[in-house]
Amino acid sequence: MLHKKSSSFCSSAVENYLIDKMNEIKIFSPATVANVACGFDVLGFCLDSVGDEMVIRKIEQKGIFISHIEGFDLPYKAALNVAGVSALAMYEAIDVDFGFEIEIYKNIKPGSGIGSSAASAVGSVFGMNELIGRPFNKTQLTEFAIKGEALASKCEHADNLAPALFGGFTLVKSVAPLKILNIPSPEDLYATIIHPQIEIKTSESRAILPSNIPLSQAIEQWANLGSLVHGLHTNDYELISDSLNDVVIEPYRSQLIPEFNAVKEAALTAGALGVGISGSGPSIFSLSKGQSTADNIKVAMQNVYSKTDIDFDIHVSKINTEGVKILK
Amino acid sequence: MLHKKSSSFCSSAVENYLIDKMNEIKIFSPATVANVACGFDVLGFCLDSVGDEMVIRKIEQKGIFISHIEGFDLPYKAALNVAGVSALAMYEAIDVDFGFEIEIYKNIKPGSGIGSSAASAVGSVFGMNELIGRPFNKTQLTEFAIKGEALASKCEHADNLAPALFGGFTLVKSVAPLKILNIPSPEDLYATIIHPQIEIKTSESRAILPSNIPLSQAIEQWANLGSLVHGLHTNDYELISDSLNDVVIEPYRSQLIPEFNAVKEAALTAGALGVGISGSGPSIFSLSKGQSTADNIKVAMQNVYSKTDIDFDIHVSKINTEGVKILK
Repeated sequence: MLHKKSSSFCSSAVENYLIDKMNEIKIFSPATVANVACGFDVLGFCLDSVGDEMVIRKIEQKGIFISHIEGFDLPYKAALNVAGVSALAMYEAIDVDFGFEIEIYKNIKPGSGIGSSAASAVGSVFGMNELIGRPFNKTQLTEFAIKGEALASKCEHADNLAPALFGGFTLVKSVAPLKILNIPSPEDLYATIIHPQIEIKTSESRAILPSNIPLSQAIEQWANLGSLVHGLHTNDYELISDSLNDVVIEPYRSQLIPEFNAVKEAALTAGALGVGISGSGPSIFSLSKGQSTADNIKVAMQNVYSKTDIDFDIHVSKINTEGVKILK
Repeated sequence: MLHKKSSSFCSSAVENYLIDKMNEIKIFSPATVANVACGFDVLGFCLDSVGDEMVIRKIEQKGIFISHIEGFDLPYKAALNVAGVSALAMYEAIDVDFGFEIEIYKNIKPGSGIGSSAASAVGSVFGMNELIGRPFNKTQLTEFAIKGEALASKCEHADNLAPALFGGFTLVKSVAPLKILNIPSPEDLYATIIHPQIEIKTSESRAILPSNIPLSQAIEQWANLGSLVHGLHTNDYELISDSLNDVVIEPYRSQLIPEFNAVKEAALTAGALGVGISGSGPSIFSLSKGQSTADNIKVAMQNVYSKTDIDFDIHVSKINTEGVKILK
């Protein structure tokens, strides 16, 4: 943990806060797409049309309390709730004579593969940090949020947390030490994401992956990732498209997602730059240039799943370069 | 092959040449460092203080003829010489009533691991292209040079050819189709390269590599490569330094290079941003900020090898952003 309790900390940032008037904050914590085809375990990007809302309130009673949850059935006990665990991690690192109450208005379905737990983990610590005068930077907030994410995913990773906090495209170079890079991206980049409402157990999506991979595949994957980073820097849509290939993970995990290949083909035919599994699935994302193409891809994806008996949600979103933000 | 003989080609570019006065060209074909730690098989950069010189001359007799070789003992027969094979590949793609004579003044020792064969393969086709009015772009020249490189390395790869032709840092996204990216790099980036004069058989440096690698290592490697590309784009020396790690190949190939670990440690202590094996070795490269640090690293590397009975060459070079060039 980077930040320990210290009286100097208390006397500066937090006491500054005490003369501040802000006691309550409402925030939007966005959904995110992790892995992004060739960037397994390191790359992610942030959505702006899907996300949770949370209210964080300063209260007299010391501690972290979840007072309201809407949308999905999740634990109220802070130590058992992703947003609560990250909040507790941050709370332990500060020294204040008050507590925080958290209301969660959850729109991102847990298990959908678009960073539901990351949005919860990020929202509470972002909101608390705003209420106490921003003593922590975004990398430090990610450190706290990792603790919450670990409750949901059973391991400490940041590939959804980083884009939720930083916005845009992020590359998590390493987790220990935590090093997050903000990769620029073209203005006109849109995502279309379909969430087929099936359950894939995290244990199954992990177990299906090989522990060793051919060196030749690894080379192809890192050539693609290096090229994607270059393409994002240079606004080269053609290169972004050429690079959005996952030769390592997709052949395994796509087997767990009904109609994956049909959705991929339909989206590419409709103009997608690339298509892949969002996180560990079951959501499937595409990237495209411009909103009208993204809307066409939505129709193409819908057409595939409409022929099945699987319910689905579908979202079109510009890349959100801001990340988690204050609503009021 | 991209370019076939055609009368339209002949009547435009080549006949334009015939009214040109240039019959002879002298060129500098640079040494290069391939792999660059985390970029195995895809990344490379170009040196400017080490390279071959070549004279390419238009002659009446049709065909490709190597008329003079200095420096090292190499075959004169074009079909057996790397520069000759790439020249022949290009010659077969054009339709001219004259031939080319090639003089090779070789400074890069074959087998040193700094792109000796690539410099030869690139030099002949670059020079010929200049003499016939540049009908081919650099990617097309790389296609011809690949044929020459394959004579030396028994496989078609472009990770030394690309930086020799394009200059700077290059990422070979794919060989078929050939796609080369020019990655920008900071102005003040220098390389120090030590070449211990031992022989490592290509077959041995290949055989020592595993055909499968742990997925966890692959992830670390592509995180580093993505970060290095970002660091080069953003002139972030600290990130470049953090990213110059090869967790996949170096643990194997470094065993073939005496004193590798000592050289690496000495160079890092002297201020290197990173150290790795150049190509498949035995040369060891470092990157650093500024010439004085590069010079200090030279002394540090020298000190290590001076205590052995192994002869060595050592070079300090700015990154050459131009690549192969005309001398007169």
